[in-house]
Amino acid sequence: MVKSLNRVDALKEEAFEKKGFDGFLVTNEKSLLYFTSCPGLAGLLIPKVGENTVYVYSTNYEQAKAEAHGFNVEMLKRGEDLMAKIGAEVKTAKIKKLAVDALSYDSYHSLAKCLKGKTKLKARGELVWELRRVKDENEIMFMKKAGELADVGIKVAYEVIRPGIKEIEAAAEIEYAMRREGSWGTAFESIVASGARSAFPHGGCSEREIENGDLVVVDIGAAYQHYCSDITRTLVAGRASEKQKKLYEIVKEAQERAFQAIKPKAKAKDVDAIARKVIADAGYGGYFVHGLGHGIGLDVHEQPTINSQSKDKLMIGNVVTDEPGIYLVGFGGVRIEDTVLVQKRHGDRLTKSPYSLETRQ
Amino acid sequence: MVKSLNRVDALKEEAFEKKGFDGFLVTNEKSLLYFTSCPGLAGLLIPKVGENTVYVYSTNYEQAKAEAHGFNVEMLKRGEDLMAKIGAEVKTAKIKKLAVDALSYDSYHSLAKCLKGKTKLKARGELVWELRRVKDENEIMFMKKAGELADVGIKVAYEVIRPGIKEIEAAAEIEYAMRREGSWGTAFESIVASGARSAFPHGGCSEREIENGDLVVVDIGAAYQHYCSDITRTLVAGRASEKQKKLYEIVKEAQERAFQAIKPKAKAKDVDAIARKVIADAGYGGYFVHGLGHGIGLDVHEQPTINSQSKDKLMIGNVVTDEPGIYLVGFGGVRIEDTVLVQKRHGDRLTKSPYSLETRQ
Repeated sequence: MVKSLNRVDALKEEAFEKKGFDGFLVTNEKSLLYFTSCPGLAGLLIPKVGENTVYVYSTNYEQAKAEAHGFNVEMLKRGEDLMAKIGAEVKTAKIKKLAVDALSYDSYHSLAKCLKGKTKLKARGELVWELRRVKDENEIMFMKKAGELADVGIKVAYEVIRPGIKEIEAAAEIEYAMRREGSWGTAFESIVASGARSAFPHGGCSEREIENGDLVVVDIGAAYQHYCSDITRTLVAGRASEKQKKLYEIVKEAQERAFQAIKPKAKAKDVDAIARKVIADAGYGGYFVHGLGHGIGLDVHEQPTINSQSKDKLMIGNVVTDEPGIYLVGFGGVRIEDTVLVQKRHGDRLTKSPYSLETRQ
Repeated sequence: MVKSLNRVDALKEEAFEKKGFDGFLVTNEKSLLYFTSCPGLAGLLIPKVGENTVYVYSTNYEQAKAEAHGFNVEMLKRGEDLMAKIGAEVKTAKIKKLAVDALSYDSYHSLAKCLKGKTKLKARGELVWELRRVKDENEIMFMKKAGELADVGIKVAYEVIRPGIKEIEAAAEIEYAMRREGSWGTAFESIVASGARSAFPHGGCSEREIENGDLVVVDIGAAYQHYCSDITRTLVAGRASEKQKKLYEIVKEAQERAFQAIKPKAKAKDVDAIARKVIADAGYGGYFVHGLGHGIGLDVHEQPTINSQSKDKLMIGNVVTDEPGIYLVGFGGVRIEDTVLVQKRHGDRLTKSPYSLETRQ
């Protein structure tokens, strides 16, 4: 309870004291979890003065009453319009300047219509994202556990990936191992992409049978208390060729150099540039087709963004991925990724699986 | 390829011939899959005249070139704004009246700004939803498979749920069995909610150890080719009490009666009312706290909606859930659900697991 209300207070400080709003409406599913720790809510209205109210349809009303500690819980009737109900409460609470986080075009207009110009309405989702990107102690504890669970999955990947197993079968074993150790499902659709398919960064997993000598990109994530982890290891089913080894060493070097640069105040685009330079210097600059990484937390992709166009700076408490890759169409791909917590002086890997191109038989 | 382009043609017929638009922009992730069968795209612009173009960031460009058959593939540079790029193309293609499916408030405004009032912009997502709610032969084939995979999960639930197993452990076994048989992950976060927690319709699954005599609600879904299934069975760990048996029979009767009413032209709210009346007549009207069901397909919740406020009518090719429940706070809940395809004269269950309150030991 204290934890959740601290987060609400932090938002009030940012939005009300510093930006002059006197109400904040949260509707993003993960942000609702962030502020309330309760799943299944439809909205959260935070007024400058008065009770913080969560809105919930009848399906989840009893659960919200039991789990949304410290919040007033309002039930929406079946068919009742969320924006109309919130609009009415905004009037009652005499909110003059309301910030909203993430409404669709339709919801925004329906809310604006209810407010009839008497309350100013502004989309200010970034105020929530700025809070969410700095993880507190509780969140770090959950993300460490999510990282450990992802390591369990990678260990199994090295055990089961052999010529003859299908990509989807390997994914089944990996996910089962994580789940048995306590993972809350998967953080995203697992990728076990082999052979030529490994050159597609988001190749998913198919019915393809892995063949001797294939590159296999294994990109998986566990979840714990709704928090995500994200790890990639690339391995070869059987013996690796010289070219595969060379690509692997380049990507490994790029990943490690970028990791060394992850610290508070580092510019995200500079960290990206460090990895990109290693790969470009080795002659593969055109084949690292994505950004170096992304923030991760309740969402698998959140702030900060680490790519060549990013304006973000890293801060203590950020959790980001470090995941350079080289993708050669027709040949295959190599990606190595860890989830990294930004600490006071350096980064700490939350995923700690060893790096090995060949499976140890 | 033919399949995907047929769907585009159907949208063109609806939006251009009948509604007078001359361009359609699709950005919803699942709708992009629906029209192109290719994952990882950022947008699809369908002009009345000229090529259909998919927009994709560099990460997924090679995969889109390989898999988005019949579409022109445009790569977005890192940091390039999707709305600016599409806005420019709308001008070049001289589109005068553009429909969009599902933009956020921010994206809508940024696109409107690019168009400078020279192209009319309207949110018309419902035109896509109306197509997606009528499944074609391919989709039905995938959804049948997804239903079979969910049945595999339920079979395992009856095998493993015993006093002493944790909810999360049961979920691990269920998901593993579905995955091994070919499921593409899970359609949604599995629910294995036991004891008092079973009274929360969306209780997820916890570390709680299931106890003798507990009601256990198992609500799971498989996925196949991105299509979802959804099934719930409720069972008792050990011997069921008279009250548990009575609740079960009421819900079973409500589910079956509603199933009999599922046919083309039936009003969704009438189907809901049939189940609701069975439960109300038995004295539990206040404890069926959600609608009877929802459409399902690429999304686990889509059109049509089956509840007391719905204005939908069922049509051949709709796939819906039929899932009444009774939830007694402090005691537990009972829900029984199947995924049902609307055929010419009746509904066909795509999930076919037997109904049993007690696990057969």
